[in-house]
Amino acid sequence: MKDRRIDEAVTRLRDRLRPDQISVRLAERLAYSYDATWVEGLPDIVVHAESTADVAWVLRIADEMEIPVTPRGGGTGLAGGAVPTTGGICLNLARMNRILEINPIDGIAIAQPGVTTYSLQKAAESYGLFYPPDPASLYMCTIGGNVATNAGGPCCLKYGVTRDYVLGLEIVIPGGKILRWGGRVMKDVSSYDLKQLFIGSEGTLGVITEITVRLLPKPPSIGGIAVAFEKIESACEAVTSILSNGILPLMAELMDQKTMQAVEAFHPYGLPIEAEALLLLATDGKEEAVQTDLARMIRVIDAFGGQVIRVAEDTESANQLWEPRRQVSPAIARLAPHKLSEDITVPRSQIPRMIQHIQRISRESNIPIVIYGHIGDGNLHPTLLFNRQNSEEMRRVAKAALQILQAALDLGGTLSGEHGIGILKLDLLPAAFSPAAIEKLWAIKLIFDPKNIMNPGKKLPIL
Amino acid sequence: MKDRRIDEAVTRLRDRLRPDQISVRLAERLAYSYDATWVEGLPDIVVHAESTADVAWVLRIADEMEIPVTPRGGGTGLAGGAVPTTGGICLNLARMNRILEINPIDGIAIAQPGVTTYSLQKAAESYGLFYPPDPASLYMCTIGGNVATNAGGPCCLKYGVTRDYVLGLEIVIPGGKILRWGGRVMKDVSSYDLKQLFIGSEGTLGVITEITVRLLPKPPSIGGIAVAFEKIESACEAVTSILSNGILPLMAELMDQKTMQAVEAFHPYGLPIEAEALLLLATDGKEEAVQTDLARMIRVIDAFGGQVIRVAEDTESANQLWEPRRQVSPAIARLAPHKLSEDITVPRSQIPRMIQHIQRISRESNIPIVIYGHIGDGNLHPTLLFNRQNSEEMRRVAKAALQILQAALDLGGTLSGEHGIGILKLDLLPAAFSPAAIEKLWAIKLIFDPKNIMNPGKKLPIL
Repeated sequence: MKDRRIDEAVTRLRDRLRPDQISVRLAERLAYSYDATWVEGLPDIVVHAESTADVAWVLRIADEMEIPVTPRGGGTGLAGGAVPTTGGICLNLARMNRILEINPIDGIAIAQPGVTTYSLQKAAESYGLFYPPDPASLYMCTIGGNVATNAGGPCCLKYGVTRDYVLGLEIVIPGGKILRWGGRVMKDVSSYDLKQLFIGSEGTLGVITEITVRLLPKPPSIGGIAVAFEKIESACEAVTSILSNGILPLMAELMDQKTMQAVEAFHPYGLPIEAEALLLLATDGKEEAVQTDLARMIRVIDAFGGQVIRVAEDTESANQLWEPRRQVSPAIARLAPHKLSEDITVPRSQIPRMIQHIQRISRESNIPIVIYGHIGDGNLHPTLLFNRQNSEEMRRVAKAALQILQAALDLGGTLSGEHGIGILKLDLLPAAFSPAAIEKLWAIKLIFDPKNIMNPGKKLPIL
Repeated sequence: MKDRRIDEAVTRLRDRLRPDQISVRLAERLAYSYDATWVEGLPDIVVHAESTADVAWVLRIADEMEIPVTPRGGGTGLAGGAVPTTGGICLNLARMNRILEINPIDGIAIAQPGVTTYSLQKAAESYGLFYPPDPASLYMCTIGGNVATNAGGPCCLKYGVTRDYVLGLEIVIPGGKILRWGGRVMKDVSSYDLKQLFIGSEGTLGVITEITVRLLPKPPSIGGIAVAFEKIESACEAVTSILSNGILPLMAELMDQKTMQAVEAFHPYGLPIEAEALLLLATDGKEEAVQTDLARMIRVIDAFGGQVIRVAEDTESANQLWEPRRQVSPAIARLAPHKLSEDITVPRSQIPRMIQHIQRISRESNIPIVIYGHIGDGNLHPTLLFNRQNSEEMRRVAKAALQILQAALDLGGTLSGEHGIGILKLDLLPAAFSPAAIEKLWAIKLIFDPKNIMNPGKKLPIL
């Protein structure tokens, strides 16, 4: 952006924002130029919004001056979605971090977008209530970002994703108009449900400034088992057998051998690194029901040749059992200078075939790929390991990543289950959507953002 | 519609449809001129679609000739949504009644729109699986109509509404283009979720021709209790206390005294007609968990002065316990020549206040109003009883209905929880939505249906 336009925008923003809410200093702009991927993009201006009115003011100026706006929550995204790749304004929402209400009678919480997922969960728990969606980054990611990406997590196998909990949204659209959709009622069919468009829109339609979510009663107990499988296929078959035998586990997570080795090198948990796969299963509910479920799951596991290596019969030991899964991301990060975590989802029946494809692509491209993920949902995170300085290697990485995505589509799957499209998964969108569908997506976009100022170059296939 | 245009449309439709798929006979047109309300509207042509290609052909002709199209499933709607009030084509989807696949490994079912909800549930059960949404008309209503209205039902307290189960849709839009959205994957964030717009759109955007739904493992057991309350407020308080005490019942249904009297007159079940309210509670899960839940619910009931009049400890007796609830609609229908069933939803904490408003409105208007509904969701069906031949009475009915809807809005509620807007609830939409919101709703509508041929005059506020 030209310096004169930046100066003009800053001057106009200052009409209604305090000086400490606006920065053009390089150090601060650098601090908001990345997310949890390697993608970088320097914003021209960083704005720290503290209210819906602040957001409305920013979107009025930006729309009038046609300046790109990239909303930002915790910056933990895995698809480059919150990186200001076209410059312009980084609209940081982290200061809007108040929980406005928890109402146990209505069974709802109302939060500003900058509240971390973990804070929301803990606040709900203090009332005996439960906010289930649990992305791995829950200590740092925000509920606003969760809604904007429709975030998932291990518990989503049983409890569904962020979309399933959003009852109401306040949204600011370009020009500064404020829309409110839904609220604290559990059921509403009084119009097209426009808030559904904003859930998972990755900041390309407007800015979410207030979120009302549904809360559930907190289940009293959690139990779990860790199971080693000689063959990864047997682990997949055991999971589908559990699901089709009337058991809906809280979580069903897979780690392949390389993932276990990485975690074990990071911290020695005593994982069965000689096995091809580790399966972590959890179940929640009343104590007696948890015990019954564990026993039933173990019977299925036995039938598929799995070796139960640990049983956690209460919430505390289940938490310990889960600890190695939480360390997967940092552990893998130490294996190579860079990593690319894919997020494909396939029908459950296609998981064994998808794993075979990934293993073949890894061999043929000579790029190490570790596999872990939410196997119960068919949502796998094959993670490619490489060094970005090596351009020949990067060409192989790019090709392997495309092959993985194409294989998922060929099996009736999708490019992203929970991370979003951002900028990293744009390439294969034309393979996933028909021209008629892409035309409708753009028509929707332009209803809310006619000048394409909201997070341009993200989420939508280029026309 | 002018005769010449009808003749021309019929001629063109016959190019790709068999003669027995098209009718202009008055008897058949009359058979498709109503739904479960008193609203009537005679279609000019009735078309029986048997395939997606048939639907595409109809929407191509209708779009070219600008002929209104009213899609129809089971005709059980309670808001006039499927009545061809502007004439044109009634597009009957009842012949598209095949279940295309049930896949227990993927955990999904794929159905044509004309499959009844009950058939889908039974087919799922034969695999030990469970499709939860259970509108009262489930023996007659169709899954296509359920998606088009985002139908609810008693089980939705625990399991959520139709929207929560739709994984994929095939849709035909005006002009005849076919869009497919989602599929058999559990999680997908690869685009704006356009299928969410069609869920609950009441046939105003296009025609749903294939539906993929998620299935759950079937819980092994159901139990329930019937409780009499001297005061209706105590019943409300008991429900919110149960919900905020860590118990999520399968269902929590309320009948007021007049509803009980009507049911008892229809069939003597031995209901406690001297009490102000009857509360029916159910819980599902493993057998031991059901027993624990029943015991915990009874403790809360005691604390609020409720008198447990029956306990059902297994699925069969729970079904019997539920029978009076299923007879509410036919029983009420005998009380007066006509009835208008409202469908307001308020935040749970506002239920007692909402009931007071309804009772006051009934007194002031001198219109009998019976109250029953899904109290756990805050979704009440206050039903006004009257004789349409009496025009003075009808003026009081219209005023009372508006007062009920306005009271719900004033309490932070909504005009419709599960029946839809159709034509009967249009009047108060401008009170429920801002002009900016209404403008966006119409912009969405025109993306898919630029000539406004799809079910015109329904769902959307008049501009």
